[in-house]
Amino acid sequence: MSRFYIGVDIGGTEVKTALVDENDKAVFAQNIPTESEKGYVHTINMIANQIKGLLDENNVSISMVNSIGIGIPGLTDGKSKIYKAPNISWVDIDISTEMDRHFPNTKVFIANDASVAALAEHHFGAIKGAKNAVMITLGTGVGGGVIINDKLYSGTNGIASEIGHLIVGENFYNCNCGNNGCLETYCSATAIIKYAQRLFVDSPCSKIIEMTDSKPENITAKLIFDAYKEKDLMAKIIVKRFVTYLSIGIINLMNVYDPEVFVIGGGVSKAYDLFIDELEKEVDERLTFKNAPRGKIVKAKLGNDAGAIGAAMLGLYI
Amino acid sequence: MSRFYIGVDIGGTEVKTALVDENDKAVFAQNIPTESEKGYVHTINMIANQIKGLLDENNVSISMVNSIGIGIPGLTDGKSKIYKAPNISWVDIDISTEMDRHFPNTKVFIANDASVAALAEHHFGAIKGAKNAVMITLGTGVGGGVIINDKLYSGTNGIASEIGHLIVGENFYNCNCGNNGCLETYCSATAIIKYAQRLFVDSPCSKIIEMTDSKPENITAKLIFDAYKEKDLMAKIIVKRFVTYLSIGIINLMNVYDPEVFVIGGGVSKAYDLFIDELEKEVDERLTFKNAPRGKIVKAKLGNDAGAIGAAMLGLYI
Repeated sequence: MSRFYIGVDIGGTEVKTALVDENDKAVFAQNIPTESEKGYVHTINMIANQIKGLLDENNVSISMVNSIGIGIPGLTDGKSKIYKAPNISWVDIDISTEMDRHFPNTKVFIANDASVAALAEHHFGAIKGAKNAVMITLGTGVGGGVIINDKLYSGTNGIASEIGHLIVGENFYNCNCGNNGCLETYCSATAIIKYAQRLFVDSPCSKIIEMTDSKPENITAKLIFDAYKEKDLMAKIIVKRFVTYLSIGIINLMNVYDPEVFVIGGGVSKAYDLFIDELEKEVDERLTFKNAPRGKIVKAKLGNDAGAIGAAMLGLYI
Repeated sequence: MSRFYIGVDIGGTEVKTALVDENDKAVFAQNIPTESEKGYVHTINMIANQIKGLLDENNVSISMVNSIGIGIPGLTDGKSKIYKAPNISWVDIDISTEMDRHFPNTKVFIANDASVAALAEHHFGAIKGAKNAVMITLGTGVGGGVIINDKLYSGTNGIASEIGHLIVGENFYNCNCGNNGCLETYCSATAIIKYAQRLFVDSPCSKIIEMTDSKPENITAKLIFDAYKEKDLMAKIIVKRFVTYLSIGIINLMNVYDPEVFVIGGGVSKAYDLFIDELEKEVDERLTFKNAPRGKIVKAKLGNDAGAIGAAMLGLYI
């Protein structure tokens, strides 16, 4: 009997669900709103209905499903518990128990969104075949997904791969976690915007002033990279700082995980072609051991569907 | 037929060799000088003789030996090559090929000294039974040994666990590796001495001035901790800085490896009881996720023999 894998990607605003067969063919349900403000039981109930509908439409019975994998925008223990998912305001909840009420005989796995993105890239995308690989997602925050010996590595308590919170320096503002100098305060889209806003008043001649209608609140990471493309000096300073700290982050990850390959995804990776040459250069300059080989750096291949498909892959990778 | 494991601990000045039986009973050869100035072929020849003598004395034939494990004070590819071992001036040499000339039918494994110390602690010592564990050795430098899923993790190119080169801030002097802000420039014995020497001239009332006969070159890490015990203000400042950065290092390692337990060894760990309370406090203050459990911190149990015994364990852990 053929086997199926279900993947659920819970985002801040929408939930995407995929049914993946053993030949890696995926079909998707219609997205539903997360509606996290109505509480997690409501969201889980809707997800359960979405899954049941998707199974019915495809004539698959739940007994043919190997496992349900769930990707969430936050921290989990890798088993059943969500410690914290700020964007959807879930704190200390037990998602697996709730899922068990709907699917009592089906295994449920949970992981953070960067980890499931890493699984999708490992199964179908840019890091396929790599025994050890690290995904770095540069978005609102900085996330990580780590493959060790062809399996997802999430550590003892599920917090391994929280690479956005590597402390790498001293910064002018604190991270949401309370610490100062976290990688995500240098390399996320948010970090790029905050640093640009800090430079704003002192850079009256920058194109960025015009592009934002002189309003610092209009700054986006995309706008900074657009100005960078046009050789704007302020944008150069901002991108230089982003690249410097991303290279430090990669050096640190090399010295702990030593992967075959780093894959860069997330919204900021849309500007990959603009920063990769500088990044390679700075990584090489900072190599701890100049005569040892190093992991290569590649761009993520998969788009929006990676979350749901990667979540489905949890059944194969845990 | 019973099986044996040979372990060789190559230090800066001496080589210690152990023969471990399958009941974990170890016997040692008489230490020999490393004599690295005579070249690595000379040293390997002497080690081979040492091993042969140890086998003869114990009536063990080489065919009963499962493997020979070698711990070196430097960076290896985990297979056969030593990239760099500064204390013994070995660069880009192939140690396994040389060993094969003496023991053509015996497997040879190599790893850095902190990794083999971690294996000894995992097999006999403070981290026994931990599925995921991280050893931090605080000595002349800062080294790391990482156990993931009960195996030694050394990454794709052997440089995983080079935790002394995690970049964690901006420091007043550069690391030997060329980078600025490496963990070992804050938390090694060398780092403690360098920072003390920097404070020396501005602290005329410190006990340390008297203890060193007013000579900054007489400062040792032990002396600083002795002064700390006597509540000397300068020593307090130095130990505070050491603890702060060690806590940052541990937070970073939590966010990537998330081990069940951290074990602290190396010369500086002799002062463990003096700094552990402050360290626990600072680690808790810096926890990225306050509601997630964290790995505990313990002191290494094994002494000088851990290197050779741990090297012997490479045959079990790779």
